[in-house]
Amino acid sequence: MNGSGTAPAVPRPAYRRLSVEQRRSQLLTAALGLFAQRAPEDVSLDDVAAAAQVSRPLVYRYFPGGKQQLYEAALRSAADILEGCFDEPEDGPLTQRLGRALDRYLAFVDEHDAGFSALLQGGSVVETARTSAIVDEVRRTAAEQILHHLGAASPSPRLRMAVRTWITAVEAASLIWLDEDKRPPLDELRDWLVDHFVALLTATAATDEQAGRVARSALAMETAEGPVGELARRILPIVADAAHLL
Amino acid sequence: MNGSGTAPAVPRPAYRRLSVEQRRSQLLTAALGLFAQRAPEDVSLDDVAAAAQVSRPLVYRYFPGGKQQLYEAALRSAADILEGCFDEPEDGPLTQRLGRALDRYLAFVDEHDAGFSALLQGGSVVETARTSAIVDEVRRTAAEQILHHLGAASPSPRLRMAVRTWITAVEAASLIWLDEDKRPPLDELRDWLVDHFVALLTATAATDEQAGRVARSALAMETAEGPVGELARRILPIVADAAHLL
Repeated sequence: MNGSGTAPAVPRPAYRRLSVEQRRSQLLTAALGLFAQRAPEDVSLDDVAAAAQVSRPLVYRYFPGGKQQLYEAALRSAADILEGCFDEPEDGPLTQRLGRALDRYLAFVDEHDAGFSALLQGGSVVETARTSAIVDEVRRTAAEQILHHLGAASPSPRLRMAVRTWITAVEAASLIWLDEDKRPPLDELRDWLVDHFVALLTATAATDEQAGRVARSALAMETAEGPVGELARRILPIVADAAHLL
Repeated sequence: MNGSGTAPAVPRPAYRRLSVEQRRSQLLTAALGLFAQRAPEDVSLDDVAAAAQVSRPLVYRYFPGGKQQLYEAALRSAADILEGCFDEPEDGPLTQRLGRALDRYLAFVDEHDAGFSALLQGGSVVETARTSAIVDEVRRTAAEQILHHLGAASPSPRLRMAVRTWITAVEAASLIWLDEDKRPPLDELRDWLVDHFVALLTATAATDEQAGRVARSALAMETAEGPVGELARRILPIVADAAHLL
C-alpha cells in the first residue's frame, strides 16, 4: 500500500512457533532456572516471562493459577529429574552404583542451590501440602530404587528405615554443604555419604537378619581397591585400640 | 445485707486466681496438649479455651495474635523441652549418655505424636519462617550438646556434618516410627539409633583426623557389656566374610 517513505522492514522479535507442549516445557525450564537461583518469594511471573522472552499474558495462559501453579509445575519437573538420579544399571559393586547416583543428585543440588535450600528448609510462602507430597515422593522413590539394588523388594522394617534415614541424611548433608559455601569438594562429600551408607547398613545388619544377608552379599561384590576396602583399612587401626570390647 | 430469702450460696465455677505467668503457662500447656494430638488446622481457640476451662476472650487477651501466636508460643515451649533432652551429665560411656538423651527425646515424640508429625512434615498452614527457625534451633542445640560430649567444642566441618546429619536421621526415624504405628518398641529404636551414631562416627573417623581422635577416646570409655561391645561382636562375623577387602 504505502510505497516509498516506508521504514525499512525491522526484524520482528523471533517468536518461534512452538507446540503447546514445547511452550510449556520452555516456560518450565525458565521458571526452574529462576527458582533455582532465588527463593520463590523473589520470583515474579514477569521474571519468568522475561527469562523465556515471552509476554506475561502468555505465561498466565499456560499457568492460570499464577505463581503457585507455576512453582508446583517446576517442582514436579525437578522431582522427575531427581527421581531419575537413582535410576542406575544393576551391575558392579553397590558403592559404585551409589556413587554414580549421588554424583547426579549432588550435581542437581549444586546447580539449583538456592531453590533446593528454599524448598527443603521450609517456611516458604509457596509450600503447601501438595509441594510437601512431591518432595516426599522423591524420597520414597529414591528409597525404593536403593532397596531394589540391595535385592530387597520386600524389605524388613529395619532395613527400610535404614535406607530412608540415610536419604534424609543425604538431604541434610546437601543443605549443610550449600550453607558452608559448597565445602568440602563434591567428590569428598559423595565418598563420605557412601561411607555413611556402608556403615549404617553394617550396623543395621547387626540386629536385622535381612540387613545381614544384604550386607554380606553387598560386601562380597566390593573390591579391595574400592571404597569399602579403603574404609575397612582406615577403620581397622581405630577399632584395634578397642580390643577390650570383644 | 439481704438476710433471709436469699438463695443458698451456689458454688461458683472455680476460677482460680492465677498470676499472668501462671495463666499463660496454663494456656500453653492446654494448647500443647491439643497441638500434640491433632494437626494445627484442626485446633481452634475455642478448643484451647475449653481444654483450659477458661473463656475464649481470655485466650485472646493472652494471645491477641490468635492461633498463629498461640501455636508459635506452644512450639517455643516444646522446643525448650526438646532442647533439654540432650542436656546430660558428662560421665559414663558416650553411648549411655546418648541412650538417655534419646529416651527423653523419643518419649516426647511418643507423647506429642500428631503434633510432631504435622510440624516436621511441612506444608502446614501455621508453618512460617519463624516456626522453621525454632525447629532449626532445636537441631542446632542438640548438635552442640553432642559435640560438647564428644569433647569437640570446635569441631572439624566433617565431624559437625556427621553429628548434624545423625540428628536429622533421628528425626526421620521418629517420623517413620510414628507412621508405622509406633513399631518397633521404643527401646529397640533407641538402640538402633545409638548403633547408627557409633557406625557414623567410626566411618567419619576414617577420613577426618579430629573424628578419629574423638572416636578413639569414645571407644576407650565403652565396655564389652555395653552397646558398642555388642555391636562389635555382632558385626565381626559379617565383616569376617569380607576379608578380601583388606
